[in-house]
Amino acid sequence: MKELLTEEKVFKDPVHNYIYVQDQTIWDLINTKEFQRLRRIRQLGTSYLTFHGAEHSRFSHSLGVYEITRKIISQFERHGYPDWPAEERLVSLCSALLHDVGHGPFSHSLEEVFDTDHEVWTCKILLEDTEINRVLREVSDDFPEKVAAVIQKTYPKPIVVSLISSQMDADRMDYLLRDAYFTGVNYGTFDLERILRVLRPYKGKIVVKESGMHAVEHYLMSRYQMYWQIYFHPVTRSSEIILRQIFRRAQELYVGGYTFDWMPNSLKGLLQGTLNVQDYLKLDEALVQTAFMQWIEEHDPLLSDLCDRFLNRRLYKYITIDNPDETLLNEISDCFSSIGMNPDYHMEIDFPFDLPYDVYRPDKKEGEKKEKAPILLLDHADEISEISAKSDIVRSITGLHQGQYHLYYPEEPLRQSAQLINGQLKKLFKLD
Amino acid sequence: MKELLTEEKVFKDPVHNYIYVQDQTIWDLINTKEFQRLRRIRQLGTSYLTFHGAEHSRFSHSLGVYEITRKIISQFERHGYPDWPAEERLVSLCSALLHDVGHGPFSHSLEEVFDTDHEVWTCKILLEDTEINRVLREVSDDFPEKVAAVIQKTYPKPIVVSLISSQMDADRMDYLLRDAYFTGVNYGTFDLERILRVLRPYKGKIVVKESGMHAVEHYLMSRYQMYWQIYFHPVTRSSEIILRQIFRRAQELYVGGYTFDWMPNSLKGLLQGTLNVQDYLKLDEALVQTAFMQWIEEHDPLLSDLCDRFLNRRLYKYITIDNPDETLLNEISDCFSSIGMNPDYHMEIDFPFDLPYDVYRPDKKEGEKKEKAPILLLDHADEISEISAKSDIVRSITGLHQGQYHLYYPEEPLRQSAQLINGQLKKLFKLD
Amino acid sequence: MKELLTEEKVFKDPVHNYIYVQDQTIWDLINTKEFQRLRRIRQLGTSYLTFHGAEHSRFSHSLGVYEITRKIISQFERHGYPDWPAEERLVSLCSALLHDVGHGPFSHSLEEVFDTDHEVWTCKILLEDTEINRVLREVSDDFPEKVAAVIQKTYPKPIVVSLISSQMDADRMDYLLRDAYFTGVNYGTFDLERILRVLRPYKGKIVVKESGMHAVEHYLMSRYQMYWQIYFHPVTRSSEIILRQIFRRAQELYVGGYTFDWMPNSLKGLLQGTLNVQDYLKLDEALVQTAFMQWIEEHDPLLSDLCDRFLNRRLYKYITIDNPDETLLNEISDCFSSIGMNPDYHMEIDFPFDLPYDVYRPDKKEGEKKEKAPILLLDHADEISEISAKSDIVRSITGLHQGQYHLYYPEEPLRQSAQLINGQLKKLFKLD
Amino acid sequence: MKELLTEEKVFKDPVHNYIYVQDQTIWDLINTKEFQRLRRIRQLGTSYLTFHGAEHSRFSHSLGVYEITRKIISQFERHGYPDWPAEERLVSLCSALLHDVGHGPFSHSLEEVFDTDHEVWTCKILLEDTEINRVLREVSDDFPEKVAAVIQKTYPKPIVVSLISSQMDADRMDYLLRDAYFTGVNYGTFDLERILRVLRPYKGKIVVKESGMHAVEHYLMSRYQMYWQIYFHPVTRSSEIILRQIFRRAQELYVGGYTFDWMPNSLKGLLQGTLNVQDYLKLDEALVQTAFMQWIEEHDPLLSDLCDRFLNRRLYKYITIDNPDETLLNEISDCFSSIGMNPDYHMEIDFPFDLPYDVYRPDKKEGEKKEKAPILLLDHADEISEISAKSDIVRSITGLHQGQYHLYYPEEPLRQSAQLINGQLKKLFKLD
Repeated sequence: MKELLTEEKVFKDPVHNYIYVQDQTIWDLINTKEFQRLRRIRQLGTSYLTFHGAEHSRFSHSLGVYEITRKIISQFERHGYPDWPAEERLVSLCSALLHDVGHGPFSHSLEEVFDTDHEVWTCKILLEDTEINRVLREVSDDFPEKVAAVIQKTYPKPIVVSLISSQMDADRMDYLLRDAYFTGVNYGTFDLERILRVLRPYKGKIVVKESGMHAVEHYLMSRYQMYWQIYFHPVTRSSEIILRQIFRRAQELYVGGYTFDWMPNSLKGLLQGTLNVQDYLKLDEALVQTAFMQWIEEHDPLLSDLCDRFLNRRLYKYITIDNPDETLLNEISDCFSSIGMNPDYHMEIDFPFDLPYDVYRPDKKEGEKKEKAPILLLDHADEISEISAKSDIVRSITGLHQGQYHLYYPEEPLRQSAQLINGQLKKLFKLD
Repeated sequence: MKELLTEEKVFKDPVHNYIYVQDQTIWDLINTKEFQRLRRIRQLGTSYLTFHGAEHSRFSHSLGVYEITRKIISQFERHGYPDWPAEERLVSLCSALLHDVGHGPFSHSLEEVFDTDHEVWTCKILLEDTEINRVLREVSDDFPEKVAAVIQKTYPKPIVVSLISSQMDADRMDYLLRDAYFTGVNYGTFDLERILRVLRPYKGKIVVKESGMHAVEHYLMSRYQMYWQIYFHPVTRSSEIILRQIFRRAQELYVGGYTFDWMPNSLKGLLQGTLNVQDYLKLDEALVQTAFMQWIEEHDPLLSDLCDRFLNRRLYKYITIDNPDETLLNEISDCFSSIGMNPDYHMEIDFPFDLPYDVYRPDKKEGEKKEKAPILLLDHADEISEISAKSDIVRSITGLHQGQYHLYYPEEPLRQSAQLINGQLKKLFKLD
Repeated sequence: MKELLTEEKVFKDPVHNYIYVQDQTIWDLINTKEFQRLRRIRQLGTSYLTFHGAEHSRFSHSLGVYEITRKIISQFERHGYPDWPAEERLVSLCSALLHDVGHGPFSHSLEEVFDTDHEVWTCKILLEDTEINRVLREVSDDFPEKVAAVIQKTYPKPIVVSLISSQMDADRMDYLLRDAYFTGVNYGTFDLERILRVLRPYKGKIVVKESGMHAVEHYLMSRYQMYWQIYFHPVTRSSEIILRQIFRRAQELYVGGYTFDWMPNSLKGLLQGTLNVQDYLKLDEALVQTAFMQWIEEHDPLLSDLCDRFLNRRLYKYITIDNPDETLLNEISDCFSSIGMNPDYHMEIDFPFDLPYDVYRPDKKEGEKKEKAPILLLDHADEISEISAKSDIVRSITGLHQGQYHLYYPEEPLRQSAQLINGQLKKLFKLD
Repeated sequence: MKELLTEEKVFKDPVHNYIYVQDQTIWDLINTKEFQRLRRIRQLGTSYLTFHGAEHSRFSHSLGVYEITRKIISQFERHGYPDWPAEERLVSLCSALLHDVGHGPFSHSLEEVFDTDHEVWTCKILLEDTEINRVLREVSDDFPEKVAAVIQKTYPKPIVVSLISSQMDADRMDYLLRDAYFTGVNYGTFDLERILRVLRPYKGKIVVKESGMHAVEHYLMSRYQMYWQIYFHPVTRSSEIILRQIFRRAQELYVGGYTFDWMPNSLKGLLQGTLNVQDYLKLDEALVQTAFMQWIEEHDPLLSDLCDRFLNRRLYKYITIDNPDETLLNEISDCFSSIGMNPDYHMEIDFPFDLPYDVYRPDKKEGEKKEKAPILLLDHADEISEISAKSDIVRSITGLHQGQYHLYYPEEPLRQSAQLINGQLKKLFKLD
């Protein structure tokens, strides 16, 4: 097993000021090419098209999650809390640092189209023949499996899992602060130092001293606001829709035998569903953008138009639809077809509820994704309670998770054929 | 000529909080594809390899320069200063917004290797057949030429030029604040609001009320610190060196008849010096990074190694050399050759003085780049003086512009052949 | 009527960066001795005993309210909204600046004991023979009455009143930001610039464009958190209780014929209820603290002890009582008497609900203080609705206004006589 | 000796976010009445009359100095540096906390008039019969003397002294950050975390790792700017002059047998030079302001006018005099006398150089106050050098310490008798 570094290394970070590295293993992991690749994957996907500051990468977020985890553990160690298993330090830090290493370019959109899962890729990167795997194996032969188990939430000590995956974990705390910083909004700022101070390891879980309840409320409200102001912003949704359509169209063409002027191996693997780890690691946002730039010149007008829309930010417009019943949607679809649009690509109903983001909901329904560990309060009598039992504020936002139905569409063809559209739809699409 | 927008548009910006757009022309320019391309060009080139937060683009900087210019002009208008030519508002705003539109990927490095000039490209983009040209011509037929003249500093009204190009212009004010924000350092923060308040149009120039002298000193000190802490950081210089060598090697190979597996037209044009505007506009950092990713697999070991170094951040190390005399450099070069290294690529002397950045120097020598307009103070008796005549602080930094000589080199081959290297060089390269 | 200043004056302000003064009248008002007196009255009363940064005065808050009002009006003017009565600018600015000028030392506590009302004093200061009155009369003879009418909310144009007195007025916006800044918490920070941008004068009211709803939610949540974290902090409540008891005891003694070593006229006027404006204006926190310092040496042990407690921060402790029924309170009272304490002064039940602070509650009961104007949203169809009809978040906090019952008491005598206290009370007061 | 607290206490602080107290002794010291008194003494004296935010007290500064010292020591302990004498922790923390406890109201002005020294009072408070003395003696009998020795800079271990008294000590670092925060300027912000990280105990001194040189330069520039922008601000100087004149006049009257309506014992002691510790501790800014408020009504017109000027901020104006030769000054003095002014009080030459603030000057002249320990850099070869030997920037500000000659005077009498004043002086005093 490796030693501590002879001299602490630091990264200057706008959110945490400095990020401190004390372990040789962490230092080596950061310097692997798989981790450096995260510099070429944006943290917020297409959000930079709405908030131009949001150009930060998963690289800086991953360092941030590591740093918060390091601070929590260091606080546990400083106080000598007996319920913290000291020997789990390194596996916790490595899991925090690496939890996002399997993300692909524009991850959420890509996962939806190709039905992949970044967590699966993370584990492959940890366990197959990679630089990361080599660094982890220097700790011990079974260390890569241990880190993978934490990320898959099957690690035998739930307290380690909860550090990076719970309703208030290092991941969420970093991304709220970081995304707020880079977009420039102040919704996401809460008192991190205070929250770290009130965390306690307790009987295999991480709990919050009750006196910190208001700080947790503040964190949850920040989270709520960030979802509705930033992550679900309709302009961002529009760009995600176009992105998905590009991938969908490219696959449709590829499978149908269309020959692309340029199609690198990694993209080919993606389109035909035969990606291995080495090719996956070559997928980054530079490659995707370069492909789109090339595809603008492809002969398929749909693909070309979509790529132009994405790169040059000619996004779909949207209208809000209160009751998206079938009759109305059919009418719109027919109208779109009648003026030469392709409803399969040119209209898309979006409803933010569907997004994989997870506003705090303790009462999930059957079949829903497994819920993350709730936030537990520890009172002065050492009793534990779930926060929504004590906080009116938390209860109040627990059920607030539906947005409005939006219909996205390219505006130009509608405007050009406005005279062919009936009065009611004309009004709906504000074509007067 | 176009009207004002019926409703002001805003961009959320982390540095200026909001950026306000009131003119249809500005709005249309932002939405051209040439301007949107700036999203794919980083503001600080390779600095993100040193400061991971520095992932912001020239897009956000350009909006920032526009916003500062807008604020200055709006202050001039609000006070009704007679020396401000009110009819120059739009040409000033457009110049501010577009001044960087000709930047290529990793601009400074690329310009050094291929001897191009982003200002020349900016003017081509303004004047040739582009979306930007079309928008500008809607103002008036000679409007593109007017904007180009401002950017080339030949516009007949120097006060307009000085807004975006002087020792304290909107460009510098934005990048200091912005680069400080995104790297996370606090060297670059000065009191923008105060400086804007003390600017005055005066006899064809922009001057500073003397009461604002200390705020200007603070700005100049911020600038000084940013250069030495951020822009000249040796790790960034190392990555720039590798970048230049990649371009140099690729050109060497291309000119020598080497066939690349993948060579898109725009890169081909760059390597053979035959770029036109349309191809130039396809050059962005996504393309460059994608090319490097492909070139890792080229057969030329030098090119492959350099690309791997850049993408996976295996940078050259450096040592400080107090007296880089020829004897020593020759000895090093011979030593490098003797162990199979290529001194032409594997050793590079760097001396930050050479960089095109321009710390305030009123006393330039013959042949040096034409100096930017100095900062002028206006005292209560309406006398003008150059700031260094009044400020000891400014005088003190005026002459401070030399760094140390650094020698950059790949460390691995030296370490592997350490036993073959003589004691003195071993010590110099810390191989013991 | 006075002119604009030849040169704009500025105050450096930590919250708004700069505060701009353009009118001679505003400048003259700031320089009156009645306004300067606000420097000697803390904005947050005794909160500095809990949050040591909270030492800021009503002087800086008053400037801040003025500045926010100025920004709102200037935005209205810039856009030329027809529903804004431009001639009301100066009366609005003066009212904003002067709305708190009648506050006495430790206002809320003092008002409770002596049943005075700072608003009444504000109007006296505006209307009687003061420097402020003289400055206002230079505008016009009825100008003092106009400003007073705005402050009394009887001004015929409700839009002017609502600028400084509504559920989201310049007063509240400034104090939330300012109190957050000086205490150092980040609960109170919301996006002021965004809120100012979405305000519109509309049919005699100020409304909020619906697109700004989330910013308003954020403001209301900030407000909610500030009340519970800062304004209702139990340690602050403890110091307010002691303060009230000092005034109560001093009055009791004075009325009972006790002769004080030192009793300045203004305090005498306060204790016997015969204050005139000139004496009221001599009451400041310096005087009150000096009196307390002198009274430590008075012969009345109760008064002396209370003054010592306040000045040297030996506050009452508190316990939380779930059901403060009469039996329990009587038992405590008897116990306190039995060990020589004075229940009339040494025990006080406090329940934050009673405080005059006003968390947003549209559904006030009969007899409650008249409600402030609600926050109205203006949608794209120019329909108005009250915010809680649209926002789940606002609805959720509307009913949240009860705190816990706390019993405050001096701990030392209890601890000294612990052996005389029965087991149950011993446990309640944690004397084991 | 006392133990650690069972639970760490925290203070919310706007500058350091939280201040952590772990030792019972520190907690007890904070709760003494002598330390609580610092809440009634402003950190920046009369600066609040120029920068209205500067209302913070020496109480919060003292906590800040303690916190920085705690952080430095905790970093030393964490790294286990052998040159740090671990047993000096508590004496260092107590000295940091208490170093300002002897400050009187408006300290610098008062010390100048009455020739007292707050350091002397600090030691008396530590060593005589006070609550602080009692708490310190609980550590050990000689502990009060040890703390006093650190404050008097006679403690045998200079490393302990240098923590709170050197060219870059915890005192200066806190006040620059704090004064910048409360005034709202950004001159004083430097990277505290970075500086703390590069401090090392080394052979009985505290040195700075050379890699931190730029951060130190930034700190020194911040310091330089704060002196000239904030501490030496001419409006503040004007208020200090008036303050000193009040004290001077009151003493003159008192010594001359004048009977004051109200003269508390502590002030009497001050005026007649017979203060003991118990009376000194009753002197606070509340008392001084209250006395001034009473003295406005004294019969001596000079004292009454000066008190009115101070409380109601009717400060002296100033003019800049390039060559304050005797002829000119005599002429002014005669002119002032001729129109009924009192040159002894109504004209004062001020030259910021004289202030006891200490811009970094390694080359003090004979007779000047003993210099504080310089800032030492430790290079990679473990060589020590004084920073100005390495830094051009530091050298450049080393000699910059002279301001301009200002003449302060009350403007109203001059303006009223303008017609009696000769043309040259009329021009000098801008009476045209």
